[in-house]
Amino acid sequence: MSNIEARATLVNQKLKFEGKAADHPSIIIDYIPPLGDGEGYMPLQLLLISLASCSGSTVVTLLRKMGKEVSGLEVTASGERRDEHPLGFKTISLDFNVQSSDIDETCIQRAIQLSEQTYCPVWAMLKNNVVINTTYSIK
Amino acid sequence: MSNIEARATLVNQKLKFEGKAADHPSIIIDYIPPLGDGEGYMPLQLLLISLASCSGSTVVTLLRKMGKEVSGLEVTASGERRDEHPLGFKTISLDFNVQSSDIDETCIQRAIQLSEQTYCPVWAMLKNNVVINTTYSIK
Repeated sequence: MSNIEARATLVNQKLKFEGKAADHPSIIIDYIPPLGDGEGYMPLQLLLISLASCSGSTVVTLLRKMGKEVSGLEVTASGERRDEHPLGFKTISLDFNVQSSDIDETCIQRAIQLSEQTYCPVWAMLKNNVVINTTYSIK
Repeated sequence: MSNIEARATLVNQKLKFEGKAADHPSIIIDYIPPLGDGEGYMPLQLLLISLASCSGSTVVTLLRKMGKEVSGLEVTASGERRDEHPLGFKTISLDFNVQSSDIDETCIQRAIQLSEQTYCPVWAMLKNNVVINTTYSIK
């Protein structure tokens, strides 16, 4: 799939949008008061979910390619915003919490490094514009 | 709100994740076969929805600040992927379809330009890494 399309449609008189792609259930988007009514995801939260799931997918895929068993993975993305416009993220902290019986520090470090350098598309599109720091834990 | 957090949790043995931020309903994330089962949004679709809603919000806010009435806005984001890893977007086309009785081309061009240059955080975080082209129509 080389082309991907999505749409956001304004649905009230403030800043509430309905987001949609393919045949997936709509995502409600809104801003916190006073700009919006806080009734949906903020666009920056969606960006963090996009990055967390994209990097999580590449990390789990790489670990499996190393022959490792991954029984669980939780990726937390935490962004610190700039003080001036544009109010995007200065830094994002990505924490990979992996559950596995046979993964050691070298494996997870290598999987995170390859995701950052080569395989995670969302990470690549933010690179140089946002500082992305990583941490991990193995359970 | 200067810090924003979100989380993606692997929920099956392929690449299905549950995305979550604040108290909003979860977003199901998945890849198309063979990697996943196509049961949710791909991370790149979420990125496009984030960009479409973020740029849509800044455009509508700027138009309202110009004293204009916006009765509808639909933003379509279409991304063309790279052929090699990382398989992110080479280009994204953003189409702003605005419904209004008092907006002319100068207004909408100015609102899009200010969003790109100064106000849209998601746009700013992709800049220089992805070519973002814009079009618009007024109804």
